[in-house]
Amino acid sequence: MRCPIITLTTDFGSRDPYVAEMKAVILGISPNATIVDITHQIEKFNVRMGAYVLAAASPYFPKGTVHVVVVDPGVGTERQPIIVETKKCCFVGPDNGVLALAAKSIGGEVHVHRITNREFMLPKVSSTFHARDIFAPAAAHLANGRCPAELGPEIHQMISPQFARIVRRKDVLEGQVVHVDDFGNIITSFTEKELETMKIKGDVHVKVGNVALKLKLCKAYGDVEKAQPLAIIGSHDFLEISVNQGSAANIFNTRVGDKVVIYCS
Amino acid sequence: MRCPIITLTTDFGSRDPYVAEMKAVILGISPNATIVDITHQIEKFNVRMGAYVLAAASPYFPKGTVHVVVVDPGVGTERQPIIVETKKCCFVGPDNGVLALAAKSIGGEVHVHRITNREFMLPKVSSTFHARDIFAPAAAHLANGRCPAELGPEIHQMISPQFARIVRRKDVLEGQVVHVDDFGNIITSFTEKELETMKIKGDVHVKVGNVALKLKLCKAYGDVEKAQPLAIIGSHDFLEISVNQGSAANIFNTRVGDKVVIYCS
Amino acid sequence: MRCPIITLTTDFGSRDPYVAEMKAVILGISPNATIVDITHQIEKFNVRMGAYVLAAASPYFPKGTVHVVVVDPGVGTERQPIIVETKKCCFVGPDNGVLALAAKSIGGEVHVHRITNREFMLPKVSSTFHARDIFAPAAAHLANGRCPAELGPEIHQMISPQFARIVRRKDVLEGQVVHVDDFGNIITSFTEKELETMKIKGDVHVKVGNVALKLKLCKAYGDVEKAQPLAIIGSHDFLEISVNQGSAANIFNTRVGDKVVIYCS
Repeated sequence: MRCPIITLTTDFGSRDPYVAEMKAVILGISPNATIVDITHQIEKFNVRMGAYVLAAASPYFPKGTVHVVVVDPGVGTERQPIIVETKKCCFVGPDNGVLALAAKSIGGEVHVHRITNREFMLPKVSSTFHARDIFAPAAAHLANGRCPAELGPEIHQMISPQFARIVRRKDVLEGQVVHVDDFGNIITSFTEKELETMKIKGDVHVKVGNVALKLKLCKAYGDVEKAQPLAIIGSHDFLEISVNQGSAANIFNTRVGDKVVIYCS
Repeated sequence: MRCPIITLTTDFGSRDPYVAEMKAVILGISPNATIVDITHQIEKFNVRMGAYVLAAASPYFPKGTVHVVVVDPGVGTERQPIIVETKKCCFVGPDNGVLALAAKSIGGEVHVHRITNREFMLPKVSSTFHARDIFAPAAAHLANGRCPAELGPEIHQMISPQFARIVRRKDVLEGQVVHVDDFGNIITSFTEKELETMKIKGDVHVKVGNVALKLKLCKAYGDVEKAQPLAIIGSHDFLEISVNQGSAANIFNTRVGDKVVIYCS
Repeated sequence: MRCPIITLTTDFGSRDPYVAEMKAVILGISPNATIVDITHQIEKFNVRMGAYVLAAASPYFPKGTVHVVVVDPGVGTERQPIIVETKKCCFVGPDNGVLALAAKSIGGEVHVHRITNREFMLPKVSSTFHARDIFAPAAAHLANGRCPAELGPEIHQMISPQFARIVRRKDVLEGQVVHVDDFGNIITSFTEKELETMKIKGDVHVKVGNVALKLKLCKAYGDVEKAQPLAIIGSHDFLEISVNQGSAANIFNTRVGDKVVIYCS
């Protein structure tokens, strides 16, 4: 039998016992589960970063994977623990917007359930650590083959975050920085499709924050000299602004959420 | 057959080959072991932090788990490698106090063995890396079902660290900061029981270092406004001083070991 | 059946979805693989550090392990993806020197293959993320028992990095700092053998950068007082310059690549 896969994405960092406690609970319920850390370095309480990272990684996992996501500033308040079931996988986490983008990246119909059945929680549920007491056991039971409907009633809406929208004005497209990766690559909300509608091929005229740039649209970071900037369609199909072997985000002083404007060629 | 679980807690950080070498040795001896990292970010040589994190995480792991803990400033000197066997799990590490608190958190009788049998060590034992050469192979053999008595003779004492003790003076309780987590939550040595003896319910009058605070005793971080301080019984039953979506440790300039005083209501 | 082991060594850091995407691809192809992270904290684009860490860790893994290494400033350019097959394990990564030192640490004959067969890559190969699209699937297919020759043709040379060489001049040996670990230990290119040729026993006269030191050659860090410097043959048989419970690299302001000179006793 194939071992079920459970992934973890949190803002817990790597110094504390919290992630290990989640794994301990999972392995107690589902001893054959393969647990994969997506990251525990989401910025504290940054629901949007959690949503982006999960949406990027989750499509690559095999069918049947259960993804647990805990970026949860409202833990212990009236926000609900939910399961989002897609055609390919389940997402488990708080209903604060962190799951919606990933569900969209999988595509197709979704069913959302609240987690209410105490049988599938730890005997004692704390008010500060639902990741261990509610989300981890729920994921382990789903990995064992339980249905979302056993864990709680279906609900018909969930909270969607304000995703980076793209606005067209005359000859420009306005979008946003959706992620800055550890290399300093600036990942924008523009996809290859938008560039095509702008008939952009050789060079990209772009403004990030207050910096105007004319960048070569490259196939590889190494297509320009070391330390030179470039534009590239990254591995998740978004337009990236990068510097070969350098940090574009540091050089252009860019942060997640900054406005990005592209001009028609 | 259930795969045995081996956990690792060290101060090795995440840049070096050291942790991977431990895992390589374990998988060579016990190929079906599930290895779980508790953390490798214990502050260098901070035996007390290692003891706290292990004591917090270990009770959640299934029966039969083997926990390896290496915070070991005395590696290669006369300090002894030991196994602490409890009713539920085994702890493997140096006899410098790092194992005693976790054994206490499991409770019940313990048996302590020195690791002396060269058969269960790597053929060449270095004097600087017992984690790889002694502790990892010992844990893997225990996970395979070997008895502690095969690895070495029973001994009848082990080193206990100076735990954070609580002292009562007139109308006040004096304790300590036992951990500061990655969110900046200040975890004190007081449990719910001590608060009850002080008849504390609504507000907590507390002094951390030189800062006097009157804090609402909350059920969830979100019970106060964003950036406001609060008191809460955390997920390990200790009194925490926290700031909703902020870092209490930064705001109040607090470190592990700082004195904490609670006043009667 | 023994689960195949696949290790990962990259400069991707721990904040992004990249490592998890590699694992997702591997588990989709080789569901029973045990994946071990060596480190993802190689300094960005530092091929030498990647080479050192891999060479240190890989000899400890069981026969049949597949090691994936991605420190790849030239991704998407004409540098080739390769497999280096040794008598004990396979290394998968870019042909930029990062694999050669590890292959040497295993010893014996090697066979090198380019990865060219599109059947063993993801259907869509990006130009920026070969770790996910080429290296991870190649490793998973090797772990499943495929031969390197199925993935591409044998080639008869690979790029070797400039390893730290040791030069003898009159009464001195000149070498280099090859690694600074997370404890601040300064790991030099000298092995026990070189010290023996210099007839060094009690004290080591050494110059690191511009700092001249006379150090006791110890068996354990704890052989000198806390905060005192020492010399020691470390757990990988290289001469280390260390400070008991302190950071030698900070105190002596030392970096990888700095010159180290040893004087005859």
